[in-house]
Amino acid sequence: MQTGSHCTMRTFLSLLLQLLILASPAFAQTTAVDGFTARRAVDQRKWEEQFRAVPAPKSAREHLRVLTLEPHMAGTKEDYDTAIYVRDQLRSYGIAADLREYKVWLNYPNTPTVLELITTKRQKLSTFETVVSGDPTSSHPKITPLFNGYSASGDVTAPVVYANYGLPNDYDDLKKAGVEVKGKIVIVRYGNSFRGVKAKVAQDHGAVGCIIYSDPADDGYMQGDVYPKGPWRPGASGQRGSVQYLFDYPGDPLTPGRPAIDGVPRLKPEEATDLTRIPVQPIAYDVARSILAPLKGPVRPRGFQGGLPFAYHVGGTNDVKVRLKTDMDYKLRPIWNVIARIDGTDLKDRWVVLGNHRDAWVFGAVDPNSGTSAMLEVGRGLGELLKRGWKPRRTIVFCSWDAEEYGLIGSVEWVEELAGELKEKAVAYLNLDAAVAGNQFGASSVPSLWKLMRAVTREVKDPKTGKSVYQSWQDRAREQRSEEERATAGEARIGALGSGSDYTPFLQHLGIASTDMSFGGDYGVYHSAYDSFYWMDRFGDPGFFYHVAAAQIWGTLTLRLADADGLSFDYTDYANEIRAFFRETVRIAGHRNLATSFDEKAMNEAIDDFAKEAERIEKARQDAVKSSEREKLARINDALMKAERQFIDERGLRGRAWYKHQIYAPGFYTGYAAQPLTDFRQALDDRNAANAKESLERIVEAVKRATRTLKAGHE
Amino acid sequence: MQTGSHCTMRTFLSLLLQLLILASPAFAQTTAVDGFTARRAVDQRKWEEQFRAVPAPKSAREHLRVLTLEPHMAGTKEDYDTAIYVRDQLRSYGIAADLREYKVWLNYPNTPTVLELITTKRQKLSTFETVVSGDPTSSHPKITPLFNGYSASGDVTAPVVYANYGLPNDYDDLKKAGVEVKGKIVIVRYGNSFRGVKAKVAQDHGAVGCIIYSDPADDGYMQGDVYPKGPWRPGASGQRGSVQYLFDYPGDPLTPGRPAIDGVPRLKPEEATDLTRIPVQPIAYDVARSILAPLKGPVRPRGFQGGLPFAYHVGGTNDVKVRLKTDMDYKLRPIWNVIARIDGTDLKDRWVVLGNHRDAWVFGAVDPNSGTSAMLEVGRGLGELLKRGWKPRRTIVFCSWDAEEYGLIGSVEWVEELAGELKEKAVAYLNLDAAVAGNQFGASSVPSLWKLMRAVTREVKDPKTGKSVYQSWQDRAREQRSEEERATAGEARIGALGSGSDYTPFLQHLGIASTDMSFGGDYGVYHSAYDSFYWMDRFGDPGFFYHVAAAQIWGTLTLRLADADGLSFDYTDYANEIRAFFRETVRIAGHRNLATSFDEKAMNEAIDDFAKEAERIEKARQDAVKSSEREKLARINDALMKAERQFIDERGLRGRAWYKHQIYAPGFYTGYAAQPLTDFRQALDDRNAANAKESLERIVEAVKRATRTLKAGHE
Repeated sequence: MQTGSHCTMRTFLSLLLQLLILASPAFAQTTAVDGFTARRAVDQRKWEEQFRAVPAPKSAREHLRVLTLEPHMAGTKEDYDTAIYVRDQLRSYGIAADLREYKVWLNYPNTPTVLELITTKRQKLSTFETVVSGDPTSSHPKITPLFNGYSASGDVTAPVVYANYGLPNDYDDLKKAGVEVKGKIVIVRYGNSFRGVKAKVAQDHGAVGCIIYSDPADDGYMQGDVYPKGPWRPGASGQRGSVQYLFDYPGDPLTPGRPAIDGVPRLKPEEATDLTRIPVQPIAYDVARSILAPLKGPVRPRGFQGGLPFAYHVGGTNDVKVRLKTDMDYKLRPIWNVIARIDGTDLKDRWVVLGNHRDAWVFGAVDPNSGTSAMLEVGRGLGELLKRGWKPRRTIVFCSWDAEEYGLIGSVEWVEELAGELKEKAVAYLNLDAAVAGNQFGASSVPSLWKLMRAVTREVKDPKTGKSVYQSWQDRAREQRSEEERATAGEARIGALGSGSDYTPFLQHLGIASTDMSFGGDYGVYHSAYDSFYWMDRFGDPGFFYHVAAAQIWGTLTLRLADADGLSFDYTDYANEIRAFFRETVRIAGHRNLATSFDEKAMNEAIDDFAKEAERIEKARQDAVKSSEREKLARINDALMKAERQFIDERGLRGRAWYKHQIYAPGFYTGYAAQPLTDFRQALDDRNAANAKESLERIVEAVKRATRTLKAGHE
Repeated sequence: MQTGSHCTMRTFLSLLLQLLILASPAFAQTTAVDGFTARRAVDQRKWEEQFRAVPAPKSAREHLRVLTLEPHMAGTKEDYDTAIYVRDQLRSYGIAADLREYKVWLNYPNTPTVLELITTKRQKLSTFETVVSGDPTSSHPKITPLFNGYSASGDVTAPVVYANYGLPNDYDDLKKAGVEVKGKIVIVRYGNSFRGVKAKVAQDHGAVGCIIYSDPADDGYMQGDVYPKGPWRPGASGQRGSVQYLFDYPGDPLTPGRPAIDGVPRLKPEEATDLTRIPVQPIAYDVARSILAPLKGPVRPRGFQGGLPFAYHVGGTNDVKVRLKTDMDYKLRPIWNVIARIDGTDLKDRWVVLGNHRDAWVFGAVDPNSGTSAMLEVGRGLGELLKRGWKPRRTIVFCSWDAEEYGLIGSVEWVEELAGELKEKAVAYLNLDAAVAGNQFGASSVPSLWKLMRAVTREVKDPKTGKSVYQSWQDRAREQRSEEERATAGEARIGALGSGSDYTPFLQHLGIASTDMSFGGDYGVYHSAYDSFYWMDRFGDPGFFYHVAAAQIWGTLTLRLADADGLSFDYTDYANEIRAFFRETVRIAGHRNLATSFDEKAMNEAIDDFAKEAERIEKARQDAVKSSEREKLARINDALMKAERQFIDERGLRGRAWYKHQIYAPGFYTGYAAQPLTDFRQALDDRNAANAKESLERIVEAVKRATRTLKAGHE
């Protein structure tokens, strides 16, 4: 169906009126859409507005209700049921959708974990969450006991050491305090890093087991009232989650770099380098208290104190011993992505990919199904446009990922399977995960998409403030700044992409420009049985208005990218951000007397050249859009898409070849948070001058490749 | 007795040897003493070393034991007994000592305070501290119940509002949360300001009563193990203390600016502007918990959460009401300073004044009697030198202050009585208060004495590290710096003098160069019955080595100042510090769009001129010392002494005329902490351009006066 066929007299007159308005100088300010010819901008605005009128609280709420009826951990029957629901909903909107199955290595607890205090007294400790009055699903019989994805099985009894957040500097502090970790069970608290880092660092220090608890200082009563009185973690709640070493490589542990499909050879489990070998177990703070309170040994070093009402000690003596027995059922299990597609018209082989995972540790109302609900509303909205005659220029792909919780498995396997095609075709990947936990918008993305993200959030109304989402976001950022920062205020910051969600394979394995965003809030029930429909209805998004806003932003972003004449990619922001990263890193190098170990000048020149070409291609893009030069635009668009690809170095990062992006990757010891200019920065942290030199050379090469790509696009 | 009369053949030979060493180039480095001619430096070193050999753990311990046998609140029989002990000890060392009595307005609790929960349930709450096993004095029958010095009497019943630290911005936060304070009883926590500020701000906001509790996050279990297991505040401990508005004026409330002696007219108590009119009461955190836990109303704003194990709410609803009844016995009561003196030889009318208070809320092992013990050891050491023939050039005055705890009363009355003489004669005032609570040296002083303080701490060995106190202090400061700060590291910072101890009348009322210092540590029992000899023996200074070190530093500083040929006052540091204060304040003015409201250039020029004269007089001093020009040195020394006096503006600070120093005063809302360039900074905080202009003009005048004084001293 052609767009023109709907051009009735009424729309014709409307179009005429718009063309007249277009001629007035005021128009350009209010109706211009970056990357669209003046004529197409009018249409674009119309479709976007029509799209945004579709997502509704009632249907968003209903999606979430259905998706969160049962615990639906990856690979289970209930997980499969949600895949079918998503597929069928999308099909009902007129969007072609299918399941894609992989067989991947997953563990479930075979029997619930045994945790027992041996001394000072003998006492069984709970590894379950309790029923909460008022929350109907909290008594669901199928709620999984507390366990960690990819924990090893094991049965260990040993004295306990409290190691704070379980990061390398915490172990340094323990060493200074004369506390030996080898042969002990460490208890660490959640926070400040991905939990897989905690497991690895514990194992590397010779611990025989690792207990991870949620301290009330971090997401319990010290943050606010606890569930069900408030949104924060109650004493009986623990945080499930994967302890895969995803900073090494994510996805199926047995098929690194390749899809988990028939015909691909699998590693033996003992060969997988992203799996811990010690038992790891999450517990609640009411339970942790029984272990922490009687600990002796030195009083904790600075920063170790948490929110339980006593002075924390680090232990390491024989006064407190526990037994930890984990019994894991590891198998190859099926998982199911749902992949849906709206084919593009003239640019069918250019893809805009939207993704959100679907599997949850329990009910997953926030994480991830608020995102799934928003995706279905995007689908419903675009379906509505299709019915009205709209067709995207570029192909739009919807992905409902499975097994993200275990290690981004659904997205990684798909990206590994379609790597060749994605490298050629993917314009951008737009991720949502825990989309709505409150009303505070936040975003991360590659810098080339900052301007676009800001532009799109200007189009969507914040349900609470009535201003635009952009304005509310800026206002909040401004409030959080110090007086001094306010005086020199710029725009609200868009963060760097680290890891912990499904943009990782797109950006960091293939070099596809990616975004992530969410409405955050007071969310203390992460990865617990209380991340439920009831919680969302009461605290996260009563009224479901922010689910609607999330769908509106996501869909508008999709429409801009799918339909643009000249893609709104701005590499000047990218150049400036790389320059800022580099300056900061050079400053650190200075403090470590490593400032002469690398070629600072070469990097600065590379950035300058990159910035120059960024400006030139931007000017070329603007000109080509104005003059509607199709062929020129095609070349420019491809250059803008492929410049990001140039940051990929096929040799991969040092010691973890799966990660190939030279600017963005998760830090080895953060796991979630990005460590920009990754290997260069790591070399400085390691005080390794040779590595610093080599890593920076690779980065310089990457920046130069990107520069050449931009240059070729507009010359 | 003349020094020469002890010159036996042996000392003559020793002197000859020293003179020979003096001729070698290596000598100057190791034996030179700033401000002393080469010949006198040899003597000086000898006397200093002999002095430092005297203070001993055994006698320091015995002083403290005797001083802390009984609670000795100002004006009591037991307080008088400690005065006699100090006087008689000093006399026994050969130092003339006498009592000086004043009659001042003091309150004791007539009957113990009644604190009662009315709703949600009726419950009497304790205003006593409990007996602690192991600490023999904790069961002393005369321990005063918890009360605040200068609380009003009152009997109020009202709903409770939790107001965090009770500072203006906390009330702003409450207002934003829609919580009304008028007519309520506020409960606030100790910390971040002098407690009198909390009382005043509560009263100014219409509260009818004010309860101040010690939160476990601030000095209880979240800092470490609680007493008697560790040094931190246990759940049953409260912090006594004065709620006088000492930021308005300190000293006897009824005789502001004048001594509380016969013949001086007294205000009526209702005329005293430094007294609160509402009942104020300190309580322990075990008791505060009963009030805070049931509070409803909004969840606390950011920063309000303390260390009790629940989410704090701010209250303000009728759910929690308490009754607070304070019954104070106000009277004119006698207090006793002990004043002792070693007359100088050729400069008898130049005084070096040492001071430390003696009165305590209960036993006061740390606060203040660790300082009293150190002072007695200084006296014993100097007494020993006197016996060996030493005589100071300048007069040394020892002051054991009374009623400091109520509002620096002993020192303020004495300074007010001797103001004329002190202005003429006082070279410096050297304060100690809570001298030893651990092993971490810290100091505050006017910048002109920084170099001297650093030099003196180089001479004293740190008992724990075996390095000099200076080196240990630098090492610790370095450890606490970030990597970046370390890369640009200077010396350990000497703080600014605010208020809260007896240097205030000397520096801020008269302009006498002052210092303060202490060995700090994990000290959670401040102003409680557990600040006891047992606590000190077990946690604060087991072995009493740091009492000895404190006496060694204090005495060496005294010897340097008392005997110097050319006083080690460095006004270059002072000029640099004023410049830094001004830059920082201008920066703040910029953020508030007040940068054009004052004459920045005039101030910068005044500072530049001051810096130039500082350099010149320093050169003149060095030259005059080298050439032993007595008359020139007398003029230079007097200029160095009197330059500080020029920072006094007799009109006083805005709205609080007692405070006259233009550079240093406590902030109106800090109470303890200094707010440099006080009125200028306050005007910026008030966003009052006219005040900012006028205040800075006064500061410029003061700096110019100081410049002229320095200039006149060396020309």
